[in-house]
Amino acid sequence: MPPTPSQLFRPDNRAADALRLTHITPGYIVMPEGSVLIESGNTRVLCNATVEQGVPGWLRNSGRGWVTAEYGMLPRATLTRTARESERGKVGGRTHEIQRLIGRSLRSVVDMKALGERTIILDCDVLQADGGTRTAAITGACIALALALNKLVAAGTLKASPLRQMLAATSVGIVDGHVLLDLCYEEDARAEVDMNVVMLADGGLVETQATAEKNSYTRQQLSQMLDYAEKGIQELLAAQRTILDATP
Amino acid sequence: MPPTPSQLFRPDNRAADALRLTHITPGYIVMPEGSVLIESGNTRVLCNATVEQGVPGWLRNSGRGWVTAEYGMLPRATLTRTARESERGKVGGRTHEIQRLIGRSLRSVVDMKALGERTIILDCDVLQADGGTRTAAITGACIALALALNKLVAAGTLKASPLRQMLAATSVGIVDGHVLLDLCYEEDARAEVDMNVVMLADGGLVETQATAEKNSYTRQQLSQMLDYAEKGIQELLAAQRTILDATP
Amino acid sequence: MPPTPSQLFRPDNRAADALRLTHITPGYIVMPEGSVLIESGNTRVLCNATVEQGVPGWLRNSGRGWVTAEYGMLPRATLTRTARESERGKVGGRTHEIQRLIGRSLRSVVDMKALGERTIILDCDVLQADGGTRTAAITGACIALALALNKLVAAGTLKASPLRQMLAATSVGIVDGHVLLDLCYEEDARAEVDMNVVMLADGGLVETQATAEKNSYTRQQLSQMLDYAEKGIQELLAAQRTILDATP
Amino acid sequence: MPPTPSQLFRPDNRAADALRLTHITPGYIVMPEGSVLIESGNTRVLCNATVEQGVPGWLRNSGRGWVTAEYGMLPRATLTRTARESERGKVGGRTHEIQRLIGRSLRSVVDMKALGERTIILDCDVLQADGGTRTAAITGACIALALALNKLVAAGTLKASPLRQMLAATSVGIVDGHVLLDLCYEEDARAEVDMNVVMLADGGLVETQATAEKNSYTRQQLSQMLDYAEKGIQELLAAQRTILDATP
Amino acid sequence: MPPTPSQLFRPDNRAADALRLTHITPGYIVMPEGSVLIESGNTRVLCNATVEQGVPGWLRNSGRGWVTAEYGMLPRATLTRTARESERGKVGGRTHEIQRLIGRSLRSVVDMKALGERTIILDCDVLQADGGTRTAAITGACIALALALNKLVAAGTLKASPLRQMLAATSVGIVDGHVLLDLCYEEDARAEVDMNVVMLADGGLVETQATAEKNSYTRQQLSQMLDYAEKGIQELLAAQRTILDATP
Amino acid sequence: MPPTPSQLFRPDNRAADALRLTHITPGYIVMPEGSVLIESGNTRVLCNATVEQGVPGWLRNSGRGWVTAEYGMLPRATLTRTARESERGKVGGRTHEIQRLIGRSLRSVVDMKALGERTIILDCDVLQADGGTRTAAITGACIALALALNKLVAAGTLKASPLRQMLAATSVGIVDGHVLLDLCYEEDARAEVDMNVVMLADGGLVETQATAEKNSYTRQQLSQMLDYAEKGIQELLAAQRTILDATP
Repeated sequence: MPPTPSQLFRPDNRAADALRLTHITPGYIVMPEGSVLIESGNTRVLCNATVEQGVPGWLRNSGRGWVTAEYGMLPRATLTRTARESERGKVGGRTHEIQRLIGRSLRSVVDMKALGERTIILDCDVLQADGGTRTAAITGACIALALALNKLVAAGTLKASPLRQMLAATSVGIVDGHVLLDLCYEEDARAEVDMNVVMLADGGLVETQATAEKNSYTRQQLSQMLDYAEKGIQELLAAQRTILDATP
Repeated sequence: MPPTPSQLFRPDNRAADALRLTHITPGYIVMPEGSVLIESGNTRVLCNATVEQGVPGWLRNSGRGWVTAEYGMLPRATLTRTARESERGKVGGRTHEIQRLIGRSLRSVVDMKALGERTIILDCDVLQADGGTRTAAITGACIALALALNKLVAAGTLKASPLRQMLAATSVGIVDGHVLLDLCYEEDARAEVDMNVVMLADGGLVETQATAEKNSYTRQQLSQMLDYAEKGIQELLAAQRTILDATP
Repeated sequence: MPPTPSQLFRPDNRAADALRLTHITPGYIVMPEGSVLIESGNTRVLCNATVEQGVPGWLRNSGRGWVTAEYGMLPRATLTRTARESERGKVGGRTHEIQRLIGRSLRSVVDMKALGERTIILDCDVLQADGGTRTAAITGACIALALALNKLVAAGTLKASPLRQMLAATSVGIVDGHVLLDLCYEEDARAEVDMNVVMLADGGLVETQATAEKNSYTRQQLSQMLDYAEKGIQELLAAQRTILDATP
Repeated sequence: MPPTPSQLFRPDNRAADALRLTHITPGYIVMPEGSVLIESGNTRVLCNATVEQGVPGWLRNSGRGWVTAEYGMLPRATLTRTARESERGKVGGRTHEIQRLIGRSLRSVVDMKALGERTIILDCDVLQADGGTRTAAITGACIALALALNKLVAAGTLKASPLRQMLAATSVGIVDGHVLLDLCYEEDARAEVDMNVVMLADGGLVETQATAEKNSYTRQQLSQMLDYAEKGIQELLAAQRTILDATP
Repeated sequence: MPPTPSQLFRPDNRAADALRLTHITPGYIVMPEGSVLIESGNTRVLCNATVEQGVPGWLRNSGRGWVTAEYGMLPRATLTRTARESERGKVGGRTHEIQRLIGRSLRSVVDMKALGERTIILDCDVLQADGGTRTAAITGACIALALALNKLVAAGTLKASPLRQMLAATSVGIVDGHVLLDLCYEEDARAEVDMNVVMLADGGLVETQATAEKNSYTRQQLSQMLDYAEKGIQELLAAQRTILDATP
Repeated sequence: MPPTPSQLFRPDNRAADALRLTHITPGYIVMPEGSVLIESGNTRVLCNATVEQGVPGWLRNSGRGWVTAEYGMLPRATLTRTARESERGKVGGRTHEIQRLIGRSLRSVVDMKALGERTIILDCDVLQADGGTRTAAITGACIALALALNKLVAAGTLKASPLRQMLAATSVGIVDGHVLLDLCYEEDARAEVDMNVVMLADGGLVETQATAEKNSYTRQQLSQMLDYAEKGIQELLAAQRTILDATP
């Protein structure tokens, strides 16, 4: 029988279903239309939203907008230095996969008709990586997106924000047979299963991706991972609301 | 209340929980160590396994092997022509994401110690794309992998096949509120939710990825999608067994 | 004195002036405007024709059309695996040379004024390579081109096919001092001279390229190679006619 | 006659020969061997030093070390978004020029024999750009370099730090005929002449680059620019000393 | 009936079977092991031979050498400026085709065993292009190759030159129904057929490539083109001999 | 005390403040609008000016022109062969830095309003490199630019040349403690300080870049280097005038 969450040892003594300490700094950078520095434990991701006129070719004259994301990692975000993708001349598979996930998630909460023919680019740059960078990026980018859309409303460009609701994301995994919420790098490296969940404020699921790194998992384990993830995301949604309420 | 599966209209009159007709042709190409043409309806994927001596740098002298995958699509696999990635000079994000999924899935069933310092490359090339190319690629590549490993055993290079068990994959989705198994392109393009499931012969889950393309999904819907996927994958696993039993 | 053709040993016991068995499957893929799978012995090339509106920049507003070709090889078309050009990020010299040859040859039989401002792209993808892939590609692509143009006529887009006449191509070479028609890979690798010939249905020559891989060749040998090539091409032109007559 | 420095209007009311407020945060990121966030007004550059074993090929077995730099800018460091160099697949000319300047400057203060066959990479990433990013990068990177070398000494890997002395850098320019120290973006965009100066703690010059963006400059103006730059660099060298004295 | 050669008008009043004025300047550049500037009319190609130790991977430990060529064109070698291939980030199809032709031709006259494990690179850079650049490159590169090999003999590195014999190349074509030798750009642009011939000093053929740009050609025309080409190449071989005899 | 210039030994016995022999050949290539071959000792740079209609995007409809430069080096311009940037698929940092310097310098002497929406591209290709290639390129490119602009005036396209004045450039350095003008490669490789100076005909400075390769330099040394550079540039400006006066 696995120990109860309170009996487990995690590197930072957290309970199995506890998030890491999360700090969100809105307006970290002054240039972008929306900017947020999100810190989850030692993971630190800078999320900047840019509003550009126009849309990609296939949407031109459709009256609809577009939301996309780019993800990057500074060379020393990691324990040993990682070569720059600009130096290697191509964007790697992991980066592509993550930025597709971020963009797809955020598109699900934007009313593209209401946005009109504008593109919002969400740049998520990892200053320090200690596990969960893609889910921190989604949670942070959603705030940067909200801030940028609020600015368009404040400027009178849009009548109302095309953001239908907020969303947030977290990771969950199985380590030594135990389900754990919000894995840090040390836990992630040892995990048998790694799962990312993106959920709407109304509880609807947008993405669930569960990957067995070793062995496999049962439907019962999948269900418990979803329970933990929902708990964590509810807390992140509350943190987002606090920030947005306090930001003019 | 949604109609029962038998009341639904699908482009090819299938029941909601029915796979498309699947043909598997082993040895389609004579050069590779393992070769399979897998056809699911109009989707046609050529899966070839190559055995090479040696492993990537980070595994050298570890005594362990490696399994990796590459995925490609011929320009006219699609309704309108798609430019070659070789001409554009880079591999796109979708391709990266798919080949990472295929490689990761197949690594989960291979005993890398037993394989020794060899690399198996699974080339999955889509000759015609009508939905579900990545799951067809996984199902086909697992057979090509099995054939290639059997050849190493037959040649006396390995004492026993390092393949621990077979796995197969299928797609499932929600179209107009109904859960449907094994979407064709026309259904996929209209789906609200798109899910890929990779499952072991022993029933363990290796990958579950459910993405809301429009709106979101509930945990109950996720559960029904998993039910349908498990049914389809059991049938694919049976088809694989038939082929492997018949191939010397 | 070299032995007469009937005394020679070829890997498949062919006469020196005999083609390999050639199969042509029209409509192998259903998406393209014209599709042909051509098999010459173990060489297997999928030729697909795509019709696109518009022409490259330098022909815009000229009233003239354009025909171009792209050539690719699946990684395991060859005995040992060849890395994908998309992975290496660039198209190699051999590929460039071949697709220029295919495009140039096919342009010579199309009335560009009658085609109008349309581009026809011929994708020639080698599924299995056993010598003579470029000439098989030309012979197959000409049928795919004819089928695509016939479809434009059938649809009423064009009044008559802009294809002035058919053409076909074969390889011929000198192995151990003997002129041989339609070299397979094993012969090609040993050949002193390797020649490709593209000829029109009316007997006019479009391309003759004879390369000494070892030593050199005389004008008399060049003449004999042309004799053999003409014989082979006549047979290929007949096979093309049979297919086209049978295809609505 | 130009107004005296105290009469000039600068966007932030600085005197003509005054630096912007400069903050230096050592250890901003925990992973690298040396890490510094340097802020000069709104310019914010993260400088991280990485120590790697080994040297580039041309130095192998020479017993000598190497110091190099890479410079990057986050897409929204600038007023309007700049595309990522990784997306464009190549590093631009400005980036190359800057990283060559940073690397060359820092190599001038390191005793490569004493460093031994190690490479130190200085990653300078601009989080926010408001003029003077390359000189802020040099000033910050020199501290990150000092910290990383001190760590090698503390660990007993090196007996003494191979850093011969500190250096710092600043920009100076001519705007509307007036020499101004440490230009912000608004001033830089209007400058007639733009100059970067890198100077050692002992007053020796390492780099002086003066470029006329409009018109040209006299030797007398060049001399006044050097006077201002020297004053500013003395202040930066003092700030560096304060930080290094306080860091164990 | 076509006019006799002497009745034809060519832009420079040459007879149909006359070469353009050809100047060969050995030692044009002092750095390379062999250097030749070859001028054929306004076509000007700088051919430099470099000797490097070692061979490509597939020849290592074979005791055999390698000869390869690279071909480039300065941006203003042409009437309107052509973008640099280095700026576009890839080598074009035409360039690939030409450098493969040059390398293959020159390999046919070198005894690779006698050369030993050395690589000779022939850089052929077109300073001005007025037709026939690839054949001028071959003719010039063969001299640069001979000079470089003679230098190895003079230095005592090789006992005898591994160059078995010289070769030279020229173009020939059909313009308005007339066979013409050594086309300049103006003629080449109007030609119905364009042919390149590479021939050994002993009269053996190494490459014959005849391409119909419009219509097609008969075997009789092919034969006349070969006659003209042979005449021209004999003259080029004589010019090469004069240069080599005069160069120590 | 350092020896007086006349006592110094330089590889070619020049005085410390003497330029190398400089030859300027206008019209070296006939295709470009302006063409110059400039030789400084063994350094040989071909400078070609191309006039194109239109300007880059950010200047469109501004009524202003643009001047830019590209710099290249043939593989055997150097003692040992340098790989082509087209083969490596990217333009290196040094090339970028040099072409930015050339373009920026020449833009400083052109009245962009008077030029109108035209782009002038200056291609500077080094045939042989023996030090000072970037300054030779600037000196030569300015003549090619003047010739091209004169041609626009002669053709009636422009009323007067938009070239405000000529400029020229040279290098100067410190070798063994002595200031030397116009370093050849052998001197440059040993120099402690390397400086490039670009100066206008009216004596105004456009670029001064002084880099310490070893140690550092004093302001007094900087001043002496500028004295020598001014002397050399005056001689180059005189040579330019001679050429331009003699060219119709």
